Order: sequence, then structure tokens, then C-alpha cells
Amino acid sequence: MSAEYSFRHRHIFGMEQFSPQDILHIIATARSLKEISCRSIKKVPALRGKTVVNIFFEPSTRTRLSFEIAAKRMSADTFNIAAATSSTAKGETLADTAKNLMAMNPDVLILRHASAGAPQLLAKHVSAAVINAGDGAHEHPSQSLLDIMTIMEHKGDLAGLKIAIIGDIAHSRVAGSNIRGFAKLGAKVCLAGPKTFIPYGVEALGAAVCESVDEAVEDADVVMALRIQRERMSDPLIPSSREYAKYYGVSRKLLEKARPEAIVMHPGPVNRGVEMNPDVADGPRSVILEQVTNGVAIRMALLYLVAGGQGGQE
Amino acid sequence: MSAEYSFRHRHIFGMEQFSPQDILHIIATARSLKEISCRSIKKVPALRGKTVVNIFFEPSTRTRLSFEIAAKRMSADTFNIAAATSSTAKGETLADTAKNLMAMNPDVLILRHASAGAPQLLAKHVSAAVINAGDGAHEHPSQSLLDIMTIMEHKGDLAGLKIAIIGDIAHSRVAGSNIRGFAKLGAKVCLAGPKTFIPYGVEALGAAVCESVDEAVEDADVVMALRIQRERMSDPLIPSSREYAKYYGVSRKLLEKARPEAIVMHPGPVNRGVEMNPDVADGPRSVILEQVTNGVAIRMALLYLVAGGQGGQE
Amino acid sequence: MSAEYSFRHRHIFGMEQFSPQDILHIIATARSLKEISCRSIKKVPALRGKTVVNIFFEPSTRTRLSFEIAAKRMSADTFNIAAATSSTAKGETLADTAKNLMAMNPDVLILRHASAGAPQLLAKHVSAAVINAGDGAHEHPSQSLLDIMTIMEHKGDLAGLKIAIIGDIAHSRVAGSNIRGFAKLGAKVCLAGPKTFIPYGVEALGAAVCESVDEAVEDADVVMALRIQRERMSDPLIPSSREYAKYYGVSRKLLEKARPEAIVMHPGPVNRGVEMNPDVADGPRSVILEQVTNGVAIRMALLYLVAGGQGGQE
Repeated sequence: MSAEYSFRHRHIFGMEQFSPQDILHIIATARSLKEISCRSIKKVPALRGKTVVNIFFEPSTRTRLSFEIAAKRMSADTFNIAAATSSTAKGETLADTAKNLMAMNPDVLILRHASAGAPQLLAKHVSAAVINAGDGAHEHPSQSLLDIMTIMEHKGDLAGLKIAIIGDIAHSRVAGSNIRGFAKLGAKVCLAGPKTFIPYGVEALGAAVCESVDEAVEDADVVMALRIQRERMSDPLIPSSREYAKYYGVSRKLLEKARPEAIVMHPGPVNRGVEMNPDVADGPRSVILEQVTNGVAIRMALLYLVAGGQGGQE
Repeated sequence: MSAEYSFRHRHIFGMEQFSPQDILHIIATARSLKEISCRSIKKVPALRGKTVVNIFFEPSTRTRLSFEIAAKRMSADTFNIAAATSSTAKGETLADTAKNLMAMNPDVLILRHASAGAPQLLAKHVSAAVINAGDGAHEHPSQSLLDIMTIMEHKGDLAGLKIAIIGDIAHSRVAGSNIRGFAKLGAKVCLAGPKTFIPYGVEALGAAVCESVDEAVEDADVVMALRIQRERMSDPLIPSSREYAKYYGVSRKLLEKARPEAIVMHPGPVNRGVEMNPDVADGPRSVILEQVTNGVAIRMALLYLVAGGQGGQE
Repeated sequence: MSAEYSFRHRHIFGMEQFSPQDILHIIATARSLKEISCRSIKKVPALRGKTVVNIFFEPSTRTRLSFEIAAKRMSADTFNIAAATSSTAKGETLADTAKNLMAMNPDVLILRHASAGAPQLLAKHVSAAVINAGDGAHEHPSQSLLDIMTIMEHKGDLAGLKIAIIGDIAHSRVAGSNIRGFAKLGAKVCLAGPKTFIPYGVEALGAAVCESVDEAVEDADVVMALRIQRERMSDPLIPSSREYAKYYGVSRKLLEKARPEAIVMHPGPVNRGVEMNPDVADGPRSVILEQVTNGVAIRMALLYLVAGGQGGQE
């Protein structure tokens, strides 16, 4: 990285905002922080006295927990607001919530929201840093960064890799962020899934749409399956879960088409037997749990980069 | 403040218990603590090793968060108990809950409860300090203290000020505490609202009931609107929200009757367009967000005064 | 205790796993930690930088709070996952949850689950220490240990004591753990309750089944009533709550049959007037609140023993 480089992003909205250098800088930071979680005393003072608020308008255990663990291992004070108990139920707007929270002097607001663009709206009204923890079907940048970190640990570099993403591309913020992020680092991204799940014009983001799952997986270095929402199982847009598994589920047989050293990824939690067979999810090529581990490291890095600069040195 | 003065309240039940000197002492303490929230490292060790339990029998995001932020910035350990998950569902009484909690050696219990007097009942059974975070339609002292602090920042002193409080006085604990608190400091409190919302005999607390909103606001130094509960919109006690806005909503036109330098307050969250017009709520006279900021400082002061004495010095 | 003894349990599943020496070692540890909760600054650094996750698949305020207080007084970072918000709702298995949590490098997982054996299943998939906070109707070891600690504080030693346990033995994990624990320390355990609530073959665990409550309580040193679940009041397995109180409720009259210095216990919260009369629950023989206090000490001891070894010394 050049000597002049410095990370200049106040907020983390999505992969769209990052240069390749930004992405590599976040991942280098995450790598240096990752070992903290392996220590006996998993705690550094970098964010001591910082106020980090998780604002989750959609339920989430994993992402919320991952951010909360990341924040506490950096010694931040963390607070959780769940949608059900928030005053939005009392008719308050997101902008109003933002201004009111801001009056309590938080340093970082981590937002999950059902609407694309909610983090940007929030950021307009606050001086705290905003981190997008998933906005509708739009972006989920910390997930994409942990995916890139995991791929880099196995493949070194994304340039020239073929990465297959299989499933409900249209409704997945994970896909939204990963297509942008992988393309920026020079990977060839190949999408496959039921036609109703491939958004029109997705090629503009830098991905190729394949006719079949076989074509997407052929010679792939990375095979990523997306989660099928259970609540969508009865959706007329997709076949039954049995049919879905048959045509789009990642099986050992399908994996034979990929490169011999290909890795298998999934944002979790896996519907075993639907989008991925258990012997694949738990098999030797699966890096699914490494993704979870890297998630904590990436979130420590993001928190550090947006809030840790001065605080950590005082 | 005289040299002999010392703050002698073990519990914070309501404004009723305070002398003017007590109120000024709390606010002076809050003023000295307020700047902590503006630091890069928002943390002092005053309440290290203290156990502060939020017990919320009614949902609240803002007040609970404000107390939790206040406690953590003083380094206390905080715990949240929400009514839905508490064992009151199993038929336990408040007194029993109190004794059981007490056996775990907490230092401060912060209680929100639907019944007036619940904090006093709780305090009978515990040796921990109890802070009332709202008991039914009775008192909400930390809200009143933050309101007084905010007024003092703008007006210096409450003596001789005219303060208009508009809305559902009868069902508002904010009004209950503020009428008491403002009167003790020598302000003239003028109430206005639908007749069904003006409690009989409220003058005994030290407030005047006005015939009209115009009369209450005329030459006022402070105009405070109360929140209309959405769930009350269909209540036969009040007109429709449109009619309410027309007759009792605080508009720029109404404000012309107040003093030129009058400030506008609201306990939040504001139903914009109902009890207050957006151009007033977000306008130059609004101090609504300052109220939120001062809320954290007041709660730090209350926690410090009831729990910090010895602990902070050890 | 012999010089060679060392506590060797990685996980805390139930009283079944412990030797008498183990039990006495846990209680000696709890005794030494108990005074921390009486200090002005209730905080020691023993578990600083440790990650303790409460995973509660059944609602609980008391046990969750007791563990959380214990963990924070030892300076651990604590996290709460409630079943309602967990991804089990999304069809994830306990094993999958376990592996995913593990990827975030927690040190201790505290599990409450409706199924007997869930902690063992969890432990198979994680390298973190697992503490059972109640698994179905099977075991609740921290409750039994706090009961033993409380009895020892009053009676010195369990050997030769007669301990009566009254109520719904069959569905009580407290009974399950206590029968095992009391018997290991040489107490004579006598069970009484509605016939439908006495499990077949319970004598194999080391308890005697009495024909009547009077027989169980006669000359007892300890009288322990179990909680009747309110939701079971209409259960055909038990009589009405009034009848239950008449035949199985612990009253002063019943207590006259016990030893003069007998103590009265209950895992809480007490249904006053059903399984125990108020004058007994709040009377001079009741040690119910001491049980709660010892609960925090026992949980500090368990956390320290499974997670504190190295961490505390670094």
C-alpha cells in the first residue's frame, strides 16, 4: 500500500463506496486484529470510552452478536436497540430517532433496516459514524469484507478467480455487496439461480449471468450458496424446497465441476439439504465457520477505522 | 449553596421530595458531569464495580438507553430486566421481585412501572437506592430535572418565568413532575389543554389553569407541549388528531404570542403535526435535542449522588 | 481437601458428574468469592477479557441475571441470546448454532434449554466450556450447588441430615439435581407430593419416597418446597391450587413436625399460599433469600473454575 494512503470513509454504507485499496486496507487491519480473539485475555483498549449502539430494525442474532463481540473486545461500551422496543412503534421517523440518539453523543451507530438506503439517511442526521449491517436487499458490506478476507486467506488474491454465487441473487444483500466487492478486486463473478431470482441488469455491477448452475460452477475457485428464506419456501417465485435442492442445491456431485481446490462458502445459517447438502456444508472444502471467525475481525477493523483513530491513542 | 448543604436523599421518587436547594445541587452536579459525554474517551471510574439494574415494566427505548449510557459512562455494570421476560409473569409480586433482586446486592434499581407509587413500594423492601424512571401518571423526576437544567441554560433562573404546559396534563407524569419542580423554583406554570385532560385540583400543585392555549402561551418564556399517545387518538376524551393539532398543536402562529426569546420544549418523541408543527419542533426556538443531551447528564448526576459517594473515592 | 485434588471438569452438566470432593471444592471457591458482592466496588479482574454468552431457549430473569451479575463482577464480557431472537427460528439446529458461536471464540456458553441433554450435545461441538443453566426436567446444577452451600452455612455438613423435598418431583430439574447432590454428600432425601408427580424408580438416585408430606417432614433438618408452574394449575395431574395448598403446601403447622432448628427452602419465585404459606416463606426459618445470594457466589465459582484458571493469572 502506498505511503500516502489513508482510509477516508466516515461511514460504512456498502462495497460501492470502496476503492480496491480501501478494501485491502480494511482486510489488512482485520488481519492484524484477528489474533486478539485467540488470546486468553481477548481485550484491547482501542475503543475504551466509545459508545457503540446497535440499532436493529430486523431481528438478527449472529450479526448483532458479531458486532457486539467486536466492540467489547475493543473495550467499547455497547448498547442494543431492537425494533420491537424502539419508539418507531410510537410513530417516530428514522431521522427523528437519529437526531435523538445523536443527542446522547454516540460514536458509532450500527444499523440494520428493511429499507435500502436507510444508513445513508441516518448518516445525514448524525455526526456519529454509521455502519450498515444490512439494508433491505441492497448491501451488507461487513459480510462481503469477511467473505473477501476468507477467500484471500485461501487464494491469496481475488484477481482472476472465478467465483460462483448461487441462489436468490435478487433479494440478497450479501449478493449485492459481494458482486460489487469481488468485481472491484478483479474476480470473475458468475451468477446462477432460478430465473425469477436473477435481477435484470445485474451485469452492470460486474457479474456474468450463467444459463445453469453447472456453467457457473465449472472451474470455479469459490462456490458460494445464498440462503433461501424459509418464509419464501411457499413463494410462487421458487419451486418447492425439494426441487430447489435438486436444481440449485450445492452437492458433492456439483462440486466435481469446480476446481479441485475450490472452497465452499455460505453466509449462514445454512438450510442443510436445501441450498447446500450437509456433506458439503460440513465437508473439507467448506470455509463457512472461518467466515464467522473473520466476521468478528472485520467488524473490529471497521469499528477501529471509523472510531478508533484518536481515541485509541489518547 | 451553603457550606452545610449535603444531598440527603437515598432514593429518587419524584420532584415532590426535593427542596429548591436539592434541585439546584443535582443540576450543578449534572453540569459538571455533562462534559464527559463530549470527550473522546467518554468514561470516568466514579461508579466502577457498582451494579445498576434497569427494571422496566413498561417498554421504553429512550429513557432506558439514557440511563444505561449514563451508568456505563460512569463505569457501572448495568443490567436490563424487561417486564415481558420477568418473573412477574409467573405471578411474583413487586415486593418479592425486590427482595430477590436485593439478595444479589445491586447498588441502584431504576424502575419504570405503570402504577403510581411503585418506586416507594420497591424501596421499602430493598437497601439499594431506587430511582423512579416513571410511575404511571405520577412522576418522572429525571425528565423534570433535565427540563429544568435546559431552561436554566437558556434563562439562567426559573424564578419569575412563565412556563406554559400544553396537552394531556392528567395522564402525563412529565407534567406531574414539572408542575411540582417548576413551582418550587418560583416559575409561574400555566396549563392548557382539552378540559378532559386537566385534572381537578391541579392548582394545589402550584399551577394555574388557563381558559385557552393562547392565554397560556401569552408572554411565556417557555412553551412545553406534551406527547399525545397515539393509542389515545381514538379516545373519546380527545378530538381527532387533526382537531387536536388545530386547537392545541404548537405552531409558529401560536408562538408569536410568547416572548420573542421563548424556548420550545417537548419530552419526545414528537408526533409532528399533532402536538407540534414540524417547523417549530425543528425550528430555532426548539431545545428538544438539548433536553435529550441533558438527560444523560442528569442521570449521571442522579446515579452519582445515590451510589457514587464512597465508591468513587475508594 | 487432599493436596493432590484438582477440579478437572471442563463442562458443568449436572450434579451427576461430581464427586463429593468436587462439590465441596466448588462451594469452598464460592465461599471465598462471596464477599466480593458485599464490597463497595464489586469487581475483580479474574475473568477480564473472557467472553461469556448466555443462551436462553426458555425465558428466565433470575437465573440469567444471576449468571450475568456473576460474570460481570469477575470482569468478563457478557452477551445474551434469547430464543425468540435466535436463528433457531430460521431452522438452525443446536449443533449448528454451537459451531457458529464457537467460531466467535467464546470462553463460556451458559445454556438453558427445554430438552434434557442439550448441554452435552452443545459441548460436543464446541471447545468453550458449557454450563447447564437448566435442561428440561433433568438437571440445574448451579441451583443445587447454591442449595448445598446454603444448607452447609446453617448445618455445617450434609451427612446424616434429613432433607424433605415436596412437590412436583417429576417435572423439576431442581429436584433432579438436588436428589443427586444431597445423596452424594450423605443426606437422607425424602420425597413427597401428589402420586402423579413422583417419578417411577426415583429411589435409584438415592431418595426415599414417603407416603405422606407429614412423613417426609417429620424430624427433617431441611424442608424444601418446589415451585408449581401456574400454567400447570389446570393440569389433570394435580388438584386445584387450593387443594394443592391444603395437602402439599408448607405451613407453620406442617413445620412443627420438623426439627426445631429446621430451615425452609424454595428455588423461587414462590407462589405464596400455594406451595408455601406467606408466613413460612417470609418467616424466621426461611433461607430463600440466602439461596439467591449464594446463587451469585456459586455462579462466580463455576465461571472461575471453568474459565478463570489461566486468564486470572495473566
